[in-house]
Amino acid sequence: MSDSYKPAQRLLRPEVLALSAYHVQDSAGYIKLDAMENPFAWPEALMTPWLEKLQTVKTNRYPDPACLSLKNKLLQVNAVPTKADMLLGNGSDELIQIILMALKPGSIVVAPEPTFVMYRQISQTLGLEFKGIPLIADDFSLDIAAFKTLCAQQDPAVIFLAYPNNPTGNLFGSDEIKQILASTQALVIVDEAYAPYADASFMSHVGEFPNLLVMRTLSKLGLAGLRLGFMVGPKAWIHEFEKIRLPYNINVLTQVTAEFALDHQSEFDAQVALILEARHWLQGQLAQIDAIHVYPTKANFILIKLLRHDANAVFNYLKSAGILIKNMHPVGGVLSQCLRVTIGTPKENQSFLTAFLEAMNHVVARSDV
Amino acid sequence: MSDSYKPAQRLLRPEVLALSAYHVQDSAGYIKLDAMENPFAWPEALMTPWLEKLQTVKTNRYPDPACLSLKNKLLQVNAVPTKADMLLGNGSDELIQIILMALKPGSIVVAPEPTFVMYRQISQTLGLEFKGIPLIADDFSLDIAAFKTLCAQQDPAVIFLAYPNNPTGNLFGSDEIKQILASTQALVIVDEAYAPYADASFMSHVGEFPNLLVMRTLSKLGLAGLRLGFMVGPKAWIHEFEKIRLPYNINVLTQVTAEFALDHQSEFDAQVALILEARHWLQGQLAQIDAIHVYPTKANFILIKLLRHDANAVFNYLKSAGILIKNMHPVGGVLSQCLRVTIGTPKENQSFLTAFLEAMNHVVARSDV
Repeated sequence: MSDSYKPAQRLLRPEVLALSAYHVQDSAGYIKLDAMENPFAWPEALMTPWLEKLQTVKTNRYPDPACLSLKNKLLQVNAVPTKADMLLGNGSDELIQIILMALKPGSIVVAPEPTFVMYRQISQTLGLEFKGIPLIADDFSLDIAAFKTLCAQQDPAVIFLAYPNNPTGNLFGSDEIKQILASTQALVIVDEAYAPYADASFMSHVGEFPNLLVMRTLSKLGLAGLRLGFMVGPKAWIHEFEKIRLPYNINVLTQVTAEFALDHQSEFDAQVALILEARHWLQGQLAQIDAIHVYPTKANFILIKLLRHDANAVFNYLKSAGILIKNMHPVGGVLSQCLRVTIGTPKENQSFLTAFLEAMNHVVARSDV
Repeated sequence: MSDSYKPAQRLLRPEVLALSAYHVQDSAGYIKLDAMENPFAWPEALMTPWLEKLQTVKTNRYPDPACLSLKNKLLQVNAVPTKADMLLGNGSDELIQIILMALKPGSIVVAPEPTFVMYRQISQTLGLEFKGIPLIADDFSLDIAAFKTLCAQQDPAVIFLAYPNNPTGNLFGSDEIKQILASTQALVIVDEAYAPYADASFMSHVGEFPNLLVMRTLSKLGLAGLRLGFMVGPKAWIHEFEKIRLPYNINVLTQVTAEFALDHQSEFDAQVALILEARHWLQGQLAQIDAIHVYPTKANFILIKLLRHDANAVFNYLKSAGILIKNMHPVGGVLSQCLRVTIGTPKENQSFLTAFLEAMNHVVARSDV
């Protein structure tokens, strides 16, 4: 092999070579309010029966490739319409990847932006064309005219709509989503990752629109460690995506643990209720701060725009106080000077609020305001 | 939408539409000797400490995206050369998919055949060109001349070599693999899924060849339920594939359980030793049967060719006796009239042998012999 041998360049797609791997910030030792996790641990009352259940698991055998028992439970607790079917993945990430892997080369993938970054990241990884349509700046609503124009002119294959949207926290108008569904032959994936906190869903509409798929996950319910996502849609679509799903993709510990948790969902619902209460409290506290704009939220996080301070400086102040949130400022655009904080336990939220109020006093104001 | 609206045909690749999903035979209630599983359950002595470990797991938090602690353990117990790096996947399946997703469109993927079917299946799913090179019929060795010709003429991107090979059970010649490594710029993936039973490995050669990657899994060691595979190779290659790996692909229960198991690997090594002993016994017993050819094996299964009986009939006879093995006859070619039996517990192997001997007496001979 000569010195000029560039094996990766020769074999791999240029889009892959150009990518950076998804970066996850180191969180060890921090109060962790960066990743939309439920802050409550596995319910104490469920510990012993869960471990008893795990004792019966055959770790030496391949898992059920159809995940039949877990899938039936998910169909039931999510009130999935009977004419729909379900696909399971290692988190929504794998489901997004499965959908996009199935598309014809050169397909166009669309999402409003800012939104969940993996729609763009996985599209680009696979060499598909990704088009972001900017959200309307003042309220992060969908630019419905831009969607309709793009659908008419460019015939996209897939549209992702996070409902509620991350990192903005708002719900798009359901009438607007229905307009999009009706105005395109693209598959429209309504990503309901934050469903436990949203009090709104397209689940009952699955089957009503031939191009509607609804995606959910157990991550925000309180089981982020399990990496279980699922997607519901017309049987014909799920049948095609099943061909791409790797046959044993969901391991046995996740299958058994998720089903066990759903058998005791009231315990997790109780955690969600506490988080909703804490969200209400934190929103109220933040609303009293003049120097920020607090966006409305239907998720387990709050987006804050700093009106006078520098987001990087406030983020770093919080970090040095032991509190890790997500600095959205580097994304730019409508997220300039924005921070996103996940709802933690009441105590964690109080720690965040105290440190945040200190930051408001200690971080010098920006020169541009 | 008109009646002629064919949404899947419009959006999805024809290769996907043409595929059948990977079929897994229903095994409920059978003595399960079909899937190369270790027949021994999680070691009894490890049950309590494992469950204690699981009590500490934060199921509400995302797993470590880098799998750092588990990866360090895997690097150590597999004696991975220091100049190599490691990529983790949900089974080898996900690793194969990651490699193939990164390739330029139109890339050629090569493997000897018959071999592990997912090389072909995933290649086709992704619209890549798969070329199987037939193994030499009498001993299932590599047709090295055919490999060299194909490499010279068609410039493949990836070559998969299962070592030992499934479903044939043999080890290809290590010198021949080295010849292939030296004669191509293709990535050569040596898939050592059956390493615990093989007493042979290319692990120490990683780094020596710039195009060598070695893939392994915990499945055959006794942890098929966990779905943990890993791939070792030059850092530059792993760096590229890391960009395609989904950031939280390995769930926390798998991470913690796999690391715990590797901390107590002697327990699993003891199971492997029992399986090797049982393999030796079963090979000896089968060798005494005139009407079959028993192929040599370096894996935890044995391939048998029926010389006088019909494989479908013998397979069904065993099934009606409650024993599930794998009928390779439908694959055709060199696998015509072949059955593959996984090594089970001594008791399971005795049950298989008894039923198999009965089948030899009860199933009528083929008309073609």
